This record gives sequence, structure tokens and C-alpha cells, in this order.
Amino acid sequence: MSKKYKIAIIGFGNVGQGLAKLLSDKQTLLSEKFGIDISTVAVCDFLKGSVADPDGLDHNELLRHIEEHGNLNKMQTPFSGWDAEETIAKSGADILIELAYTDLKTGEPALSHVKQALSNGMHVSMTNKGPVALAFPELRKLAADNNVQIGIEGTVMSGTPSLSLGNDMLLAAGITKIQGILNGTTNYILCEMEKGLEYQVALDQATDLGYAEADPSGDVDGHDAAAKVVILGNLFMGLDLTLSDIDCTGISAITSKDIENATLENKHWKLIGTVGKTESGFIASVKPEMISKNHPLASISGATNALTYSTEILGDVTIIGPGAGRLETGYAVIEDILAIHKNS
Amino acid sequence: MSKKYKIAIIGFGNVGQGLAKLLSDKQTLLSEKFGIDISTVAVCDFLKGSVADPDGLDHNELLRHIEEHGNLNKMQTPFSGWDAEETIAKSGADILIELAYTDLKTGEPALSHVKQALSNGMHVSMTNKGPVALAFPELRKLAADNNVQIGIEGTVMSGTPSLSLGNDMLLAAGITKIQGILNGTTNYILCEMEKGLEYQVALDQATDLGYAEADPSGDVDGHDAAAKVVILGNLFMGLDLTLSDIDCTGISAITSKDIENATLENKHWKLIGTVGKTESGFIASVKPEMISKNHPLASISGATNALTYSTEILGDVTIIGPGAGRLETGYAVIEDILAIHKNS
Repeated sequence: MSKKYKIAIIGFGNVGQGLAKLLSDKQTLLSEKFGIDISTVAVCDFLKGSVADPDGLDHNELLRHIEEHGNLNKMQTPFSGWDAEETIAKSGADILIELAYTDLKTGEPALSHVKQALSNGMHVSMTNKGPVALAFPELRKLAADNNVQIGIEGTVMSGTPSLSLGNDMLLAAGITKIQGILNGTTNYILCEMEKGLEYQVALDQATDLGYAEADPSGDVDGHDAAAKVVILGNLFMGLDLTLSDIDCTGISAITSKDIENATLENKHWKLIGTVGKTESGFIASVKPEMISKNHPLASISGATNALTYSTEILGDVTIIGPGAGRLETGYAVIEDILAIHKNS
Repeated sequence: MSKKYKIAIIGFGNVGQGLAKLLSDKQTLLSEKFGIDISTVAVCDFLKGSVADPDGLDHNELLRHIEEHGNLNKMQTPFSGWDAEETIAKSGADILIELAYTDLKTGEPALSHVKQALSNGMHVSMTNKGPVALAFPELRKLAADNNVQIGIEGTVMSGTPSLSLGNDMLLAAGITKIQGILNGTTNYILCEMEKGLEYQVALDQATDLGYAEADPSGDVDGHDAAAKVVILGNLFMGLDLTLSDIDCTGISAITSKDIENATLENKHWKLIGTVGKTESGFIASVKPEMISKNHPLASISGATNALTYSTEILGDVTIIGPGAGRLETGYAVIEDILAIHKNS
């Protein structure tokens, strides 16, 4: 007998659609292997419209409407037109899936959605870095006060279970430092520059491939990676970091000449995020570093991400996997729901 | 309020002593962060003697006796001299920690210990490959029938949480193939040969460093890695493999000339364990392979181990970490106990 979870999805872009596809494809597996049955009772998107059905929406129907109409306006459902606040209040969901856009300055509107849901006794899964980078200690307390859980696996390395690895399995080994390649766009650009491309050409290519945003500054200036360093430091080091604590340098000043010089020394330029304890406090930085070929992060190529946990007992443990993607990030939500199920 | 677990340790060699050290050092962390309090009520070693105390043995005392006397015979405890069978029957432990030696032919005596414990309603954690490689389906059923759990994290990559990663987090992503560098001794030898050493010199060096056993055939012939392939295939692919199903070739035929030729082609020789589904069934092998420098396993150096899960949803996810070691393997037992606690 599977346990039923009702979810409400806020934000139905790439990740939300990827999640709907996974929930459709993996329903039997999730029920038989993990004992959970996930029913989507509401979808709310600022641009694409909102639908709700307490008996569960059909995931394939949701995807068909997006494909055919670009929105959900023609879908026949018991309720429609709710905004995010109404969706959280009225949908009857057990878990809020917050996938709206990331604003790294205010965390809004996602932050308000998450607070409302936690206060109403709903679990939350989010792939949004904003609220986590800006307000995780507050959200963690709010969740504890309301006896619910927050899942944030998708905020770092998409569905690659990098945070669960640290939290569930390595915390007891004594984590002393975390280093990673946390942004796929910049790693792709640096790898293409090693192949001989100029910075701007490599950046344009990354944009064409959908790795970089139309405004790529969040990637190339290091702010996206810095938000992930904030999350890692707060989650695993007991720190209380905000973005302004991160010593952050992007890759836009790296020249083809710098890349050539590194190659001559048998080294690679990588944009490395670091957080660690020191005798006087902590270091937390994002900056381009020239690392030797036998460094565990040296061979990470293209848009792949990687994270190395340095621990007292196990030494270095590294996880490598995708850092972005529609299905990959949607899968992070499923990991969060499985964790909520396991810890309930 | 921590939940108390009483454990009985069978086999008090390197791993058992490493575990005792960790339990002494990490007691506060395990209680405060994870809510568990682990009390060792019995230690039984065929050579070093056996002691038991229902109120819990002092871990530092155990280690002091081993250091000073090489055995536990002078330790004053309420009970002593029990053999393994008596220890399991009389110690009152909730969890059997089976750390006796690995016999890959019969799995004994560990297999009998594990069966007795499961039948008596005790959970089991073991770092022993033998019983798992030979009889895991039977043991899994026995555990289910008795409503207890089996932890086997330490059987592959020591305390690097490679099995939990697959089982807890990647199974829902659809694992299609698993490849890994699963034996540190052979990887060390191949890396040293790349630096110019002859095979025999590199092997002697591995023995001196304690990586290889006095009889290194289990490592260099690939049988140690093959046992891990059996475990991975049975755990994640729903297969029912035994050692004889593995197409196994060791590294002893690799010459310095082979290594040189690989280097000229910008490639590395690695002993790769593989298990995967195919249209006609499965492949399961251990063999030396010449892999290119951008393969995720190419940069794994020295005695480090690595495992790549190929999945439908996330593509490749790789974990890299230690494959052996006293504290590292002892930590695997702590991970097993944490998992037993979480799933209870």
C-alpha cells in the first residue's frame, strides 16, 4: 500500500514540465519500489495559467496543453486561475514544489511562497537557490516549528544528489572543507577556451546551447556559484553566510593567453567555489584557479559539475554529475519527496 | 533523547579497532546530531579473545588492551571467552557487526554468523564481501522475514558511501550500467607502472605500503573487484550473480610496453569492473581497459576507488573516494547503523 502525497507545483517552466514527465513515466517504479504515490493537485504559473483538481491532474494532459497551446488556459479542471497564494491556501497539497524564478537579491516571490507553505504545515521542495541562499536559517526554523521538512537537493548540482551525500552520509565523517565546480556555463566556456576559442565566442556558444542565460552575468561573474557556496557553508559548516560574505571573482578577465600558459604548465583553469573552516573563522570564495591535472576537479569537462567534500575520516570524497537540465532538475524534486517520505 | 543501540563486534582486527576508535571519538556527535547512542556489549575475535558486558565495554580500554597486550585476555569484564555463536546468542545486542575475514569461496564463517543473527532478529552490518557476494538474495529474504535490516556499505569502496548513493538516491533515476575502479591495489600498481616501474616492483611497493595482501592474487587476478561487481549487479540490477558469472581478467599480463603504448595514445590502463543490462541479458566483467583521458575514471590515481552509475535521467553520476583503510572501513559500519536507525 503506497503512501499518497499531494503536491502543488508553483512555476511550470522547464523544470516543472520535466517533473511532470518524470511523475508520469516513473509512477509505477515510485509506487512499487519506494511505496509512494504522488498526485499533483495544483499547478500555478504566472504566465501559463493555473489549474487545480483535488483528485489529481493528469501529467500527460498538462504537458500536452503546454505543447499545443503554450499554456494551461484551455484545460478543463474543477478549479483554475488561482494565484500562488491561493494555490498554497486552497489546493490541499501536502508538499509545495516551488519552481518559480530565482531572484538572488530578494528571493521573492519564492521566499513568500515557501514561508506561507511552511507556516501552513506543508513540506516544501524547491530548486530555487534564492530563498535558500538568503534565508535558510529562518526557513529551517520555520519548518521545525511547524514539524515539516524542506528539500533543497536541486539548488546545487540539479538532481545529482550532492547535498544528500553530504547531509546523510558524510556529516558524521567531519566535513572540514568543500570545493566544487558549481556552474556548468563557466566550466563549459573554460573548456572551450582550452580548445582554442576566444572568451566571447565560447560564451556565445554556451548561450546557443542553452547553458547560459540571455543575460549571462550571473554565471560568468560567479554569483550563481557563490549562492551555492552560501548554501553549502550554511548547511554543512554551521555558518550563517549571505552572498556578501563570499569573496567572488568571475571568469570574464581570463584571457586566451592565461589558458595557454596553464596548458604549458600542464594545468587547467577552473572556476572553483570553496568553503571551509580555518583557525580564525572560515573562508568562502568563488574564483578562477589554476589547478594541476591530478586535482580531483581537473578532469571535469563541459557543463558537468563536481563537488569534493574533505573529511576527517574519509579524506576526500568527490561526486560528479549534471549541474542543470530539465529532467535532471525535476529529478531533484523526486529525491526531495523520497527524503520527506523517509524522514516522516 | 538518543536511541540506544547495542552492538556485538565479531572480528577485532584493523576495521574493528578503527570502529572502536570512531565510536570513542564521535560519541557526542552521533548523539547530538543523529540521535543515536551506540554501546558495544561484546567483542569476539578468534585470535585476540572475547569480552562482553551488557552495560557496554569501554572503547578506549579495548584499544589499550590490544595495543599493550595484542589481545583482550586480561580485560576484566562480566563475561569472556564466548565464541561467535555464543556472542550472537547471549550478548543481547541489537546489531551484529560482522568483521571476520573474507573467504570468497564459502563465505564462512561470516555467513553462518550473519544467518544466526538475522534469524535471531538482530540487524547486521558487515564489511565482509564473502557472504554478500555469495548469498545476498538469501540473506535479504531472511532479513525481511525477521523484520530486520542488513547494512553492507563497507563491502564496496569502504566507507565511501557508494552503495547508499545508488540505493537511496539513484535507483529511481533508472540505473542502466555501473562501472568502477574497485580495487585500490591494482590501480596503485598501474599508476606506478605509468611512472616507469616494472610490474613486480610496483606490486612489491603496494605490499610494503599495506595495500596488497601477503598473497596478492585476490587483488591482481581481479577476484576482489569481481566480488564487488557481483554485489553491484545483485543490488542494483535485479540480477542473481555469483562469482562464476563474472568474465574476469587480472592485471598480471600488463607489461611496461603496454603502459607505454597507452601513454603514447594519451590513454590509461585501468582495471575496470562493469555490470550492465543488455538486450540479451547482462554483461558483468572485470578486465584491464585502455581508457581515454576524458573518461570519468581516467584520472583516478593511486589507491583511490571510483564508481560511475549510468542512469536514464541523470546520465553519469560518479563517486570517488577511499577504497580501503582502518578508519575508512570502520566508518562504513557507522553509516550502516545510521541507515538502520533511519529506516527503523
